[in-house]
Amino acid sequence: MSDYSAPLDDIRFVLENVVDLAGLSKFAAYEHVDPDTVYGVLEENARFMEQVVAPLNRVGDVQHSRWEAGAVVTPDGFRDAYQQYVAAGWGGVPFPADYGGGGFPWLVGSVMQEIMQEANMSFSMCPLLTQGAIDMLLHHGDEGQKERYLPKMVTGEWTGTMNLTEPQAGSDVGAVATKAVPSGDADGSWRITGQKIFISFGEHDMADNIVHLVLARVPDAPPGTKGISCFIVPKYLVDEDGNLGDRNSLECVSIEDKMGIKASPTCVMAYEDAVGYLIGEANAGMRYMFTMMNNARLSVGLQGLALGERAYQSAVAYAHERRQGRAPGAPRGEQSLIVDLPDVRRMLLTMRALNEASRCIAYLNAECLDLALHHPDAAVREQRQELADLLTPITKGWGTDMGVEVTSLAIQVFGGMGYIEETGVSQYYRDARIAPIYEGTNGIQAMDLVGRKLPMRAGGVVMDFLASVAATADEVSSSDELGPIGTRLAAGHDVLKEASEWLMTNGLADPTNALAGATPYLRMAGTVTGGWLLAKSALAAQRRLDAGASGDDAQRYRQKIVTARFYCDQILPTADGLLAAVTAGPGDLVAAAF
Amino acid sequence: MSDYSAPLDDIRFVLENVVDLAGLSKFAAYEHVDPDTVYGVLEENARFMEQVVAPLNRVGDVQHSRWEAGAVVTPDGFRDAYQQYVAAGWGGVPFPADYGGGGFPWLVGSVMQEIMQEANMSFSMCPLLTQGAIDMLLHHGDEGQKERYLPKMVTGEWTGTMNLTEPQAGSDVGAVATKAVPSGDADGSWRITGQKIFISFGEHDMADNIVHLVLARVPDAPPGTKGISCFIVPKYLVDEDGNLGDRNSLECVSIEDKMGIKASPTCVMAYEDAVGYLIGEANAGMRYMFTMMNNARLSVGLQGLALGERAYQSAVAYAHERRQGRAPGAPRGEQSLIVDLPDVRRMLLTMRALNEASRCIAYLNAECLDLALHHPDAAVREQRQELADLLTPITKGWGTDMGVEVTSLAIQVFGGMGYIEETGVSQYYRDARIAPIYEGTNGIQAMDLVGRKLPMRAGGVVMDFLASVAATADEVSSSDELGPIGTRLAAGHDVLKEASEWLMTNGLADPTNALAGATPYLRMAGTVTGGWLLAKSALAAQRRLDAGASGDDAQRYRQKIVTARFYCDQILPTADGLLAAVTAGPGDLVAAAF
Repeated sequence: MSDYSAPLDDIRFVLENVVDLAGLSKFAAYEHVDPDTVYGVLEENARFMEQVVAPLNRVGDVQHSRWEAGAVVTPDGFRDAYQQYVAAGWGGVPFPADYGGGGFPWLVGSVMQEIMQEANMSFSMCPLLTQGAIDMLLHHGDEGQKERYLPKMVTGEWTGTMNLTEPQAGSDVGAVATKAVPSGDADGSWRITGQKIFISFGEHDMADNIVHLVLARVPDAPPGTKGISCFIVPKYLVDEDGNLGDRNSLECVSIEDKMGIKASPTCVMAYEDAVGYLIGEANAGMRYMFTMMNNARLSVGLQGLALGERAYQSAVAYAHERRQGRAPGAPRGEQSLIVDLPDVRRMLLTMRALNEASRCIAYLNAECLDLALHHPDAAVREQRQELADLLTPITKGWGTDMGVEVTSLAIQVFGGMGYIEETGVSQYYRDARIAPIYEGTNGIQAMDLVGRKLPMRAGGVVMDFLASVAATADEVSSSDELGPIGTRLAAGHDVLKEASEWLMTNGLADPTNALAGATPYLRMAGTVTGGWLLAKSALAAQRRLDAGASGDDAQRYRQKIVTARFYCDQILPTADGLLAAVTAGPGDLVAAAF
Repeated sequence: MSDYSAPLDDIRFVLENVVDLAGLSKFAAYEHVDPDTVYGVLEENARFMEQVVAPLNRVGDVQHSRWEAGAVVTPDGFRDAYQQYVAAGWGGVPFPADYGGGGFPWLVGSVMQEIMQEANMSFSMCPLLTQGAIDMLLHHGDEGQKERYLPKMVTGEWTGTMNLTEPQAGSDVGAVATKAVPSGDADGSWRITGQKIFISFGEHDMADNIVHLVLARVPDAPPGTKGISCFIVPKYLVDEDGNLGDRNSLECVSIEDKMGIKASPTCVMAYEDAVGYLIGEANAGMRYMFTMMNNARLSVGLQGLALGERAYQSAVAYAHERRQGRAPGAPRGEQSLIVDLPDVRRMLLTMRALNEASRCIAYLNAECLDLALHHPDAAVREQRQELADLLTPITKGWGTDMGVEVTSLAIQVFGGMGYIEETGVSQYYRDARIAPIYEGTNGIQAMDLVGRKLPMRAGGVVMDFLASVAATADEVSSSDELGPIGTRLAAGHDVLKEASEWLMTNGLADPTNALAGATPYLRMAGTVTGGWLLAKSALAAQRRLDAGASGDDAQRYRQKIVTARFYCDQILPTADGLLAAVTAGPGDLVAAAF
């Protein structure tokens, strides 16, 4: 057992009040998914993650995954827990029933991902990468490929990987050099040769087969991203009946010694004339990658939230047992619980506010992905796709930056004990630090936001978004109890609008204006978006109080208002301080010599 | 060899232009210390640290210090490097000649501390703690104690420790429970019994003896901080002639497994009727600790700078060799050096600006300590002591927070490679995370700033400080070239003044107002102080350019202006965004339930 408890009340509050889970169940695709069913599934899932997966988090950090002559040995208990995960069918929940999935909304899959990542981020990396591979095959595989690979991947019996990075091709995916040549065999297969790095769970001992998706270049492919193709390269070849055959000629030649997520093996993979199967068309691999990018980036954004939530729970528990100093008004002569010290309360409330903002953003993002696919009205589908596109870099970039900040605050609450490995908070901090880097660094998220997302519909998408923020600000401002939140949100709206307009105008004139201001703009956009959704939370909570909520419910709603007010009063105004950096232009960046 | 190079040009610039090293040499105490001598010493010191100490940084992280049956084995090379350090006499530079020291200003000692900490933070912890012990003995030991212990501690042949913390007594030093009883022996010795934790270099194999300074309670001591006494408890007893005698009955019973500074053994020390010698008077230990607190907190503030500087050097080097993506205006078809990408340049310039601001603050703080002791004019001495008192929590709190931020940026510049241990930047990030915790957590620094420092002279000290900032803002504003920096600085001054006045007024009315706003206030104060001193840097650089500086000098001065302008344009305005948090009061912190 661990001390982790899935924050189901907080989760349910967002599903009911910030997004609309019940609304999703009205669409044909989800008619079997009523909210009560979802909450039942989430409770069962939470129990599994709390009891089976969370207790392995620390042992994973201590033991690491180990490389032994080409094999990778995961820490004690990982294989067994994974087998239980497969047996319970957790991996298939958000995937189509055609391939054995549960057909649940992506929103529900995202909640489960949050919980699994809270329980054990290293463990979660294996299903996470499998999800990416499934997503790719679902969208771009042919029927034969889907039938051959998907059923076992959806159950999790086989896991998946994404092989993008090479030493010279990190953020610059277009520099991939791995080669693919036609085998000449009747099955249309290819032979893949090259080395890939940073391949999460590229090799491990938890599943029967590993389906590698590998980016490579076919002969005479155009340079850059337009010449990249995507191949299925299974660890064990699979015959037409789905039986495992020969071992393919690929190998994990080493794993990395990392600062965190040490139980997740980060593999160097060598492919030597390995048998591969082209997905879709040659040279279209990069386009295919883009279709799964929103899902993958949302997942990584959720990691920031997840580690923040886990760290918050630890910090709260510690603050309730540790005595030190004397709180205002406490009697002399005895030490107070540190939870009563104002500066500790500031840290805890900051953590909670950032986590809740992050959860709202991520769930809204997930809901947009569902609505973009399944809303009956085409105009709504398009509008939600646009919002998902806009939110994705914010979910990923801001969410993972806040994950680092929140886990750092947890260490600070623990004081000296936070720096000692046995208390466990150091692991959350170390684990969290990867999330701003992979799946597109946060610098790349920022450039995506200003370079691709702001220009959508000539700025129309971001202006629609700002109009939503303004509408909420108006609504909150007219509330007797919540008025000041509205004032703060209106100010946040104004500064984000000014920054957005500056970037659009001056970014058009000279793209380096946008590149130079991208990172502070992303921070500002996340800060304001968080304020917007917490203001919505406060409105919903107030409505429930006005409707007569009592007891624990009323207490919970009042706390939602406290959190939202704290965020809007104290965190949201930091957005103002970023305007200067957003609008500074590239002058000093160019003038600097390093 | 390592890739570390002491930033002597940057250091010298601050010594000449932000503080006044040459001015110090005019005082009687320092008349033997002319600037040329100092620069010669610093160059030699830098060579030693670069060549001998810096190369051990990574091996220290990999091997750790190891506990073996009560002994502590430091990593390969540490003992030898320490012996060389002792032989060269580096430890004694800032201590009085009476005990074999060099009699150099604390400012010079601080520069050397920065360099040593840049080279190897774990290694530096041993001399750092020794410095604290020397400082205590110098101020409060009797002549016999000074003669018996100081000469060997000043050379570094014996090292020192500070034994404050116990499991129940961390930030709350008053809760110390270790007991001291008179031995009844003719030498007036005591017997010390208790357990101490978090004792840096409490045991090790680098020196012949370890002089522990231990806080304990004598019989019938009053409760809390007023009943704490300070004892000398040497590992080996020392006879009147300074010869080592019996082993004292104290032991290192374990060392901690920490996130960073792994080569610095963090010891659990058990004292069992150990022989101890009272320093000064009984029950005055806490008062004595306060006299050395400014020095110790300055040292820790320098650690934030040091790790930031080391990380910056690594990031710059990597950015000059790593190619990825295409910079604006670069030809198609080839990868650019990442140093040419705007977002990477933003990260590098942010790191540099924060480091330089941090260095200016720390050096000014150190100079104030020297002037407070040695300026011929009593009014100046008092005024400089006040400024040192005001700056100390800023140097420590802001400096170490920025150390975490800058080392995190270095990881981000490295991308995925930054998360891999072998590249070394992860170590800087992990090492840096302790500095906001120890020597008074940054929450305690913030409370010290608002609770003890703002009220000094009824706010007169902070108002004098603000007047200095305003004067610089005026001076810069009237410069043709630098005018905009002055506008920014004036705005920073205004917001800090407003925040200071709010805290003084409302903190008097209700101290929880001050406690609730302390942390954002410290951040604001550091941000504005950094802007003030970088504006001074820019003024000095402009004066040198106007005076005809050319070649490399001119380039260096122009870069100082670029850094200052970037800081004042883009970082300083974030101070505005903190005003709301400073002035929010405790309402939501009280209303929150955890």
